[in-house]
Amino acid sequence: MTNRMNRQWRLAARPVGNFKDSDFKWTEEPVPDLKDGELLVHNQYISLDPTNRGWANAVDTYLPAVKLGDVMRGGAIGVVEESRNPAFKVGDHVSGLLGWQEYAISSGAGLAKLPEIPGLPLTAHLGLFGHIGLTAYFGLLDVAQPKAGETLVVSAAAGAVGSLVGQIGKIVGCRVVGIAGSDEKCRWLTEDLGFDAAINYKKEKVFEALKRECPNGIDVDFENVGGEILDSILALINLGARISLCGMISQYNATDRMPGPSNLFMLIVRRARMQGFLVSDYMGRAAEAMTALGGWLKEGKIKYRVDVVEGLEQTPRAVNKLFDGSNQGKLVVKI
Amino acid sequence: MTNRMNRQWRLAARPVGNFKDSDFKWTEEPVPDLKDGELLVHNQYISLDPTNRGWANAVDTYLPAVKLGDVMRGGAIGVVEESRNPAFKVGDHVSGLLGWQEYAISSGAGLAKLPEIPGLPLTAHLGLFGHIGLTAYFGLLDVAQPKAGETLVVSAAAGAVGSLVGQIGKIVGCRVVGIAGSDEKCRWLTEDLGFDAAINYKKEKVFEALKRECPNGIDVDFENVGGEILDSILALINLGARISLCGMISQYNATDRMPGPSNLFMLIVRRARMQGFLVSDYMGRAAEAMTALGGWLKEGKIKYRVDVVEGLEQTPRAVNKLFDGSNQGKLVVKI
Repeated sequence: MTNRMNRQWRLAARPVGNFKDSDFKWTEEPVPDLKDGELLVHNQYISLDPTNRGWANAVDTYLPAVKLGDVMRGGAIGVVEESRNPAFKVGDHVSGLLGWQEYAISSGAGLAKLPEIPGLPLTAHLGLFGHIGLTAYFGLLDVAQPKAGETLVVSAAAGAVGSLVGQIGKIVGCRVVGIAGSDEKCRWLTEDLGFDAAINYKKEKVFEALKRECPNGIDVDFENVGGEILDSILALINLGARISLCGMISQYNATDRMPGPSNLFMLIVRRARMQGFLVSDYMGRAAEAMTALGGWLKEGKIKYRVDVVEGLEQTPRAVNKLFDGSNQGKLVVKI
Repeated sequence: MTNRMNRQWRLAARPVGNFKDSDFKWTEEPVPDLKDGELLVHNQYISLDPTNRGWANAVDTYLPAVKLGDVMRGGAIGVVEESRNPAFKVGDHVSGLLGWQEYAISSGAGLAKLPEIPGLPLTAHLGLFGHIGLTAYFGLLDVAQPKAGETLVVSAAAGAVGSLVGQIGKIVGCRVVGIAGSDEKCRWLTEDLGFDAAINYKKEKVFEALKRECPNGIDVDFENVGGEILDSILALINLGARISLCGMISQYNATDRMPGPSNLFMLIVRRARMQGFLVSDYMGRAAEAMTALGGWLKEGKIKYRVDVVEGLEQTPRAVNKLFDGSNQGKLVVKI
């Protein structure tokens, strides 16, 4: 008998537009006893990511839609408190899709044991050394293959992934132009992270600004936004350009089907490539990315910040910070 | 002195929607004397292609926009009637962007000398052994890399390029599903060309029909159309799908900016690739394609038809056959 009470956010309705509190239901229930092969994880941090929005829709994407009434899906890291699974022992730190809840029972499938690295905060495993860092690393280097001297544009550049992509682009030797939603973010990109230029899309026309900041055209686009921003980028791509499609945050809260870019024909004109990817396909090469990212961090070549929201209760409201752009770095909830 | 009169179609206005007669002006003028290094070509056949529509717009694409008052750009083949260029002699057959006119003066730049192949009609150089055949060959095999057992969808499948793409897909071992605009065309695809299925987009919903005819999803799309058809295809692509972007004929006559596909996000979900290409990038490998295509033609593995319109006067009206779908095979004008 565990005698523990679990606190959970369950999906109560299919969201329309932004998440609302009423889309989720707060439940409390006793944690059941473990069966053979299971383990009990006490979640410490939940990772909030733009993709959460898509999971709440009725339509399956790269993962099945979360069912109404189920605990909301979410990445999290926690500590093993009980185990009837020989692969995990009490005290192990683990990460996986443990959900928006305080306790998760797992069979161990899809769960990663986290190495204990002295001095490394636990949240790093949701960020630089987690899916964020791997997304930036492989999405830029493997999918788009930037070369020194090329111009790289990053949309949602002040986001957790985008800010890393731009810094990796600088390490490769690219001219890096970021697009973000406030002057403060733009300053952070150019003054602290070394971007060559940053465009505040709320203050000026992206097309005109890109034309100014990319005098030699655009060779690589790391695309997190889609919509009109992607359209402006397509209008300026060079011969043989590569567009790494990571996300389309401009569309996730759309209540109607949103049209795609008008300028798709530019892919033909410029013999360009647009390629979608998911970080989950690169898990087998995680060590390669973590070694490189860890090295660059040590050398001071990349910086990284985490935006911690306190309290499981805040989760549904906190996730919207990703869509209104008010988060400052990788967004996590501390339980 | 040549003493010859040239008959020409010049671009008189920027077309809105379909080409109209009033977009062009018929002119007749004497052919000027040749300068050193020039040659005079007597055009025999003009190639009409969907891309002609884009060239007439005010906006540069992969080639500069045709200027108002200039002879309309167009591929053509002809015979050299005079030459002051040592690389070409009287009687040579040549092909190039010789324009919508009876005579063209050329410096020889961009002009290809055609090999004389016994039994091969001259029009083959505008079709199977010209840019059409090369587009189908490289756009499918090099850009999309289909494998045996995969499902290939071809839009505008009864067109000059599409009909070849489907047949090459069958040679590779794909399940081939074509999309065309009449029952007669669909019958031609399945009964004469060996397509596994053909969908008449004017008679049924493309999405539903594709779902039925591609029970294992879509691995490769050879895209000539864009718009809603591309959207339906995107909704059904498999993991690792490849979309070879050859054209977007649904957009060329658009009078407003047309939105792109709503389902672009599927590129991420399915880790898929969309790649634009132009046949001009493959000219250095033309011999490879011509050898393969010639071999398949001899073995009876590919069939090919040419739609000949008689008379230079007919050119502006004839080109619209590409957009209303009334052409039957590669469309050419016989001068």
